[in-house]
Amino acid sequence: MGSQIVGKQSIAFQSAVYIAGSASVVGPKEAAGPLGEWFDIKEEDPLFGKETWEQAESEMQNLALQKAAEKAKLEISELRFLFGGDLLAQLTATSFGNVEAKLPLFGLYGACSTCAESLTLAAMSVAGGFAEHAAAVTSSHFGSAEKEFRFPLGYGSQRPLAATWTVTGSGAFVLGNRNGYVRVSGVTPGKIVDMGVRDNMNMGACMAPAACDTICQNLLDFEREPQEYDRIITGDLGTVGKEILLQLIKDRGFDIEEEHMDCGIEIYNPETQDTHAGGSGCGCAAVTLSALILPKLRKGTWKRVLFVPTGALLSKVSFNEGQTIPGIAHAVVLEHV
Amino acid sequence: MGSQIVGKQSIAFQSAVYIAGSASVVGPKEAAGPLGEWFDIKEEDPLFGKETWEQAESEMQNLALQKAAEKAKLEISELRFLFGGDLLAQLTATSFGNVEAKLPLFGLYGACSTCAESLTLAAMSVAGGFAEHAAAVTSSHFGSAEKEFRFPLGYGSQRPLAATWTVTGSGAFVLGNRNGYVRVSGVTPGKIVDMGVRDNMNMGACMAPAACDTICQNLLDFEREPQEYDRIITGDLGTVGKEILLQLIKDRGFDIEEEHMDCGIEIYNPETQDTHAGGSGCGCAAVTLSALILPKLRKGTWKRVLFVPTGALLSKVSFNEGQTIPGIAHAVVLEHV
Repeated sequence: MGSQIVGKQSIAFQSAVYIAGSASVVGPKEAAGPLGEWFDIKEEDPLFGKETWEQAESEMQNLALQKAAEKAKLEISELRFLFGGDLLAQLTATSFGNVEAKLPLFGLYGACSTCAESLTLAAMSVAGGFAEHAAAVTSSHFGSAEKEFRFPLGYGSQRPLAATWTVTGSGAFVLGNRNGYVRVSGVTPGKIVDMGVRDNMNMGACMAPAACDTICQNLLDFEREPQEYDRIITGDLGTVGKEILLQLIKDRGFDIEEEHMDCGIEIYNPETQDTHAGGSGCGCAAVTLSALILPKLRKGTWKRVLFVPTGALLSKVSFNEGQTIPGIAHAVVLEHV
Repeated sequence: MGSQIVGKQSIAFQSAVYIAGSASVVGPKEAAGPLGEWFDIKEEDPLFGKETWEQAESEMQNLALQKAAEKAKLEISELRFLFGGDLLAQLTATSFGNVEAKLPLFGLYGACSTCAESLTLAAMSVAGGFAEHAAAVTSSHFGSAEKEFRFPLGYGSQRPLAATWTVTGSGAFVLGNRNGYVRVSGVTPGKIVDMGVRDNMNMGACMAPAACDTICQNLLDFEREPQEYDRIITGDLGTVGKEILLQLIKDRGFDIEEEHMDCGIEIYNPETQDTHAGGSGCGCAAVTLSALILPKLRKGTWKRVLFVPTGALLSKVSFNEGQTIPGIAHAVVLEHV
């Protein structure tokens, strides 16, 4: 087995790791958006039949994991480990959403980059020979996220145009060492990048520098040109963050304008859905990966995609104490089998 | 290479993984406790020269990582990945404490079990051939934790006797595939266990069932008797949780009374330090591992230890919404080289 350590911060998996099943669960706003027809489970009630936003988010994770296992033709008990996370303090959605799964759980937090963090670690557990199958699940909920990071919904606060709309959704992925339809061939875990941005209504600007750092590092580590990826897909930069990213990448000597897509821009219709700069949240990248990106890779429409969810590392406390909002982005290389 | 998958939920590492360096950073109360003389860095100022508890906690992580790298005779830039976590919402201490390290970061949350979660994943990254060296860092701070989970310190709330005292401390560990002094030979990542306990002033009772589940699973998976471990050391059950754990384990047909120790009981002097049931927090298990457990393993006083940090999965929101407090515990097998 050759070295799997590539360049400064990447891994190229020598043992094959496949995505063997995935599922997306969304609320009504996402179901009404441009990707609506491709989501697996669409629920009209944003509370998912529960009493609180947090319980609703837990229920989404529960449903997503069940559906992903079903699509991978596995019982949940056949999954060795679960890598899960969400945006809430102390991972409330994950802790309460996965009690019934009875799986060894690694709780993860990387803000909206958590989907890639969970895929990376699940892939490492499979490629390292520590699991035949492992699952990754992440979620976000508009109601719980606004309460967690900004203002109670009841205030009816106005949102500036740079703001994004937290996606109500959960995506789950079953990874395995055989029988999958998309290969996870490599990863570039990202560093914290702090450019001093302090605007919690402009997450795109907070995260774009981290996305730039991770994407450039991936290209350098794997010695690839941007066009060797059919798409380079960020998680939730939105329209404001996208513009910043493209410029920052140009400053670093690369041009990804042709290849770049952003899940946050794909998921809502800005003309009719009043979401301003786009969608965001752990769930945004996760459900878009499951519903839009993986099917295109499976079909062969795209041969190789760099999937780069981005996170803004703020808390109510750090924000109120006047701290900056650093960003982080993790990249996962996905290939047609 | 034989299978590393052992029993229902454990891993036995086929490639050697060693702890190559570790460090502990504590505040004045911990320095005054029974383990005081063995901590690496003891700071008289609980704010560590910063303006907020959160910044103080970040600074502890920063100091611990630097010291651990120094003791491992490595530059921080030689570490491939950092696995880090703390108790605060959105991992505030970790996010702001590791900007300068400029390492790819996996943010983790497993409440007070996070030290074992970080060691487990760092060990997997090394044993899987994804890193030559990786670091794990965790922390807690009495001031930031009380603010995060209970009441502002200024209220002067009375603490019931079942309450534990959150340790102000951070432990960092450098793992590598050579030149270490203690071997990480296996792990048993734990499941969420919810027994319906709702008392946020009795964390020991919340976590004991999870500790029982993980310890018994480890013994079953590795087909070991408790006495094959010189010590079985939980993270922060405290005196109340310890009693519950020993009884629960007996109900499962094992007896660990001889081997059991608890970091939360070791770290303070209950007669003189007014800490009631003991110490707790991510930092409790981490600094006790670095200052007390690893030196005894290194010397050979103990040949094999099962290290089992335990976490209580609650948030202010889940508690206020009337939810239970599930527990989780991850076990790491540490051996004298």
